[in-house]
Amino acid sequence: MLKIANQTFQSRLLLGTGTFPSVEIQREAVKASETDILTFAVSQMNVDNDDDDLVSQLNPDSFSLLPNTAGAKTAEEAVRIAKLARASGLSDMVKVEVIGDDQTLLPDAVETVRATEMLLEDDFIALPYIADDPVLARKLEEMGAHAVMPGAAPIGTGRGILNPLHLSYIVEQANVPVIVDAGIGAPSHAALAMEMGADAVLLNRAVSQANDPVKMAEAMKLAIRAGRLSYEAGRIPEKRFAKASSPQDGIPFHG
Amino acid sequence: MLKIANQTFQSRLLLGTGTFPSVEIQREAVKASETDILTFAVSQMNVDNDDDDLVSQLNPDSFSLLPNTAGAKTAEEAVRIAKLARASGLSDMVKVEVIGDDQTLLPDAVETVRATEMLLEDDFIALPYIADDPVLARKLEEMGAHAVMPGAAPIGTGRGILNPLHLSYIVEQANVPVIVDAGIGAPSHAALAMEMGADAVLLNRAVSQANDPVKMAEAMKLAIRAGRLSYEAGRIPEKRFAKASSPQDGIPFHG
Amino acid sequence: MLKIANQTFQSRLLLGTGTFPSVEIQREAVKASETDILTFAVSQMNVDNDDDDLVSQLNPDSFSLLPNTAGAKTAEEAVRIAKLARASGLSDMVKVEVIGDDQTLLPDAVETVRATEMLLEDDFIALPYIADDPVLARKLEEMGAHAVMPGAAPIGTGRGILNPLHLSYIVEQANVPVIVDAGIGAPSHAALAMEMGADAVLLNRAVSQANDPVKMAEAMKLAIRAGRLSYEAGRIPEKRFAKASSPQDGIPFHG
Amino acid sequence: MLKIANQTFQSRLLLGTGTFPSVEIQREAVKASETDILTFAVSQMNVDNDDDDLVSQLNPDSFSLLPNTAGAKTAEEAVRIAKLARASGLSDMVKVEVIGDDQTLLPDAVETVRATEMLLEDDFIALPYIADDPVLARKLEEMGAHAVMPGAAPIGTGRGILNPLHLSYIVEQANVPVIVDAGIGAPSHAALAMEMGADAVLLNRAVSQANDPVKMAEAMKLAIRAGRLSYEAGRIPEKRFAKASSPQDGIPFHG
Repeated sequence: MLKIANQTFQSRLLLGTGTFPSVEIQREAVKASETDILTFAVSQMNVDNDDDDLVSQLNPDSFSLLPNTAGAKTAEEAVRIAKLARASGLSDMVKVEVIGDDQTLLPDAVETVRATEMLLEDDFIALPYIADDPVLARKLEEMGAHAVMPGAAPIGTGRGILNPLHLSYIVEQANVPVIVDAGIGAPSHAALAMEMGADAVLLNRAVSQANDPVKMAEAMKLAIRAGRLSYEAGRIPEKRFAKASSPQDGIPFHG
Repeated sequence: MLKIANQTFQSRLLLGTGTFPSVEIQREAVKASETDILTFAVSQMNVDNDDDDLVSQLNPDSFSLLPNTAGAKTAEEAVRIAKLARASGLSDMVKVEVIGDDQTLLPDAVETVRATEMLLEDDFIALPYIADDPVLARKLEEMGAHAVMPGAAPIGTGRGILNPLHLSYIVEQANVPVIVDAGIGAPSHAALAMEMGADAVLLNRAVSQANDPVKMAEAMKLAIRAGRLSYEAGRIPEKRFAKASSPQDGIPFHG
Repeated sequence: MLKIANQTFQSRLLLGTGTFPSVEIQREAVKASETDILTFAVSQMNVDNDDDDLVSQLNPDSFSLLPNTAGAKTAEEAVRIAKLARASGLSDMVKVEVIGDDQTLLPDAVETVRATEMLLEDDFIALPYIADDPVLARKLEEMGAHAVMPGAAPIGTGRGILNPLHLSYIVEQANVPVIVDAGIGAPSHAALAMEMGADAVLLNRAVSQANDPVKMAEAMKLAIRAGRLSYEAGRIPEKRFAKASSPQDGIPFHG
Repeated sequence: MLKIANQTFQSRLLLGTGTFPSVEIQREAVKASETDILTFAVSQMNVDNDDDDLVSQLNPDSFSLLPNTAGAKTAEEAVRIAKLARASGLSDMVKVEVIGDDQTLLPDAVETVRATEMLLEDDFIALPYIADDPVLARKLEEMGAHAVMPGAAPIGTGRGILNPLHLSYIVEQANVPVIVDAGIGAPSHAALAMEMGADAVLLNRAVSQANDPVKMAEAMKLAIRAGRLSYEAGRIPEKRFAKASSPQDGIPFHG
């Protein structure tokens, strides 16, 4: 079970809600993913009462909502967006996203630290999105962040875990959940994150922009379970030289 | 559905039976894997009638057996072993394994071609195990091999797919099933093989030598399904520059 | 020519002076490297007048000195160390190194930004050492940093460029020199950094801890030249499919 | 010194002569590379007496010629081409190249073995071009091949060493020179091959198709020397955790 602050979740897949080809496909993909946590940009919220939207048709007991502060370029903007989300009654949990570059969409470390500090002071449950910087991850945890969300690769690149060494440092040192966020493109990427000991994976475009988002949502669900099981099961080490899998030792197959 | 020669199989996971810590764990892992095809070294067969063995307790309708010719260093030895397996009534399907080096356990291309030729002439269903050599794979297919089994990495190294480019060549050109064999260490490796379009994955040590083989068998089952679903769903391409997953375009999330 | 602030340098190799097996080997390696810039930890400076040291025997016109603030864990400590170096008349150029973790020796982004700000205000020529964070690199450049020094990998790991994508972002956006620092283990790593467009490479342990530091210093000198020449020469692109290097087109070889 | 059969060579760079933009650039690149061995496709030889060609202007004492059998798809064709080259007085040394696929240009292992066998029987000095198959490399060496030429990647792809593990097996087991051939795109690739212990590198397109072939020829010359020096100097091992290059131990820098 994934535990963030005081809440527990069955699923270790967090699903972003943007860029699906249609509301119907979005809904089906959410179902197929069996996610417990839906993320979305507050800046994209429809403030009108729209009966045909996703949230109004969801069972509110089934999902937690994780608004993010996408669009913010400074700590102050992020705080303003987070407060807007809380005021609208959606959630006091927030993904702290302060983008520092319009092309790579990589986060701004300094502003993210400042925003997280302010949000924690204001009793938010703050989950900062960061690059794969172990020092920054620890600093945020020490400040009281409720999880850290290192990117695997820049948002939307679909390249998987660019720097497994840095991610492994983050996972090993963390006492709060590590949610791998951004850059996942395929189930093998999500499985690897979980095998390394990440607590959860946040996906959006890898699902929403797949040719068949619903099928990909199911694929990701299975991959994340597979990776977690592998972490628990203890995989074999990598070796330089082979040993036969057709054994001279071990338990023979009795034909 | 995986189709080899005239047979069809639900599962795309082939499981080797060697080196499990106990017969009980072997049995549980086989169950958890939901495999349809069990592989084993003919040289390890127990010719005695042993009521406590795996096969005698299996429902013979539930599994196909794929004996391999492990131990053979020449084509002639491989053929002799295959005939032994067929004579004992186990199977006329055989994994052609002719090892060319005791340390790396890599296959001998020349002897494998010769062995496959002889076995096909003798009406075996022949599945040759090879390195990731696209020219060799095609040659074997043109000779009539019923599948090709390229290694991801040397047997027992657990390193995953060392040369994705060569494997992708093999998968794209093949008109017979491509079964990725050897070197898989983790679910992410198995998922990647399937994402790339492989038809199936053969595992042994990655399961049997995991700390918890039964849990790992389940992990691998899920990862292989995830990879296949991804292949069908069509993953997003890798990009150099990010696009926001918190969209300005696409279907917004209506809060 | 490498240009930092107002100074120009023939060599694109910066050499650290720590951890050599002997002063003699250090001296020979410096010579073999043909470096123009020697770096060292101010905290390791010998304040006694030691006639047998390296610097006193060097032609002071031949080398620039780049003291670093190793040992600092806060901006204030880094500033204090830098001032000490300047006061001793060594250099007003400083590598801003604020380590955030004793095990990985990775830098602290927030403290590095603060230290750089203070040092620039105090008219230092400031070259901050950072992780491979493009947003941080740009922020430091915009503050007035005279170069940025992204790590290839954590100090002393010898793993080479862990995240070429991030490094390529940094190189492409930079208007100040990019000096790749830390984690280089082999000439191929140094060559790759230069091929990608880095302006220089800082080495220490890859040379000082090699079995033969003098020979490795020469190897690194050549590799850095090779990489720079390649950058200027324009390498061939990577392709998915081969084209014959034994041409049907192009200029034939007239035998 | 590189030693093939009874000949020794100063340079560890073999240069292919195809696909240069002009004869002049070809000549300059040959000079800049300081190569001792020029390779070319016999099928591209100009049998006319052409005074303006490369060979007629070369000092015949300065270069060895290594004709290759490009164009051959069977052992018999390769033998025929090799005999043509020898008959024309060029060389009794031959690169055995039997391509098995027109798209990837990967070699045919079975035909290459047959061709090498026939050529050795006919007293050629035979250097077979192969994929990175350690079992095949040893088999050819045991047959009497005078060197083995494993590809780094498919011809013309410029991707560098796709499978360092397999190449390291080949290098470690070999008692004849290992000449890495095909797929090199950049100096860092060539340096890596040499660092791993390869005896030489054969280049063509990486030089001839660079924007500036002459400058790239020089870059490759330096990179190959750098890699060889590194192999001799003994590089530092890769580590998981950093140790400071600003030492507490070791020889301090006396300021």
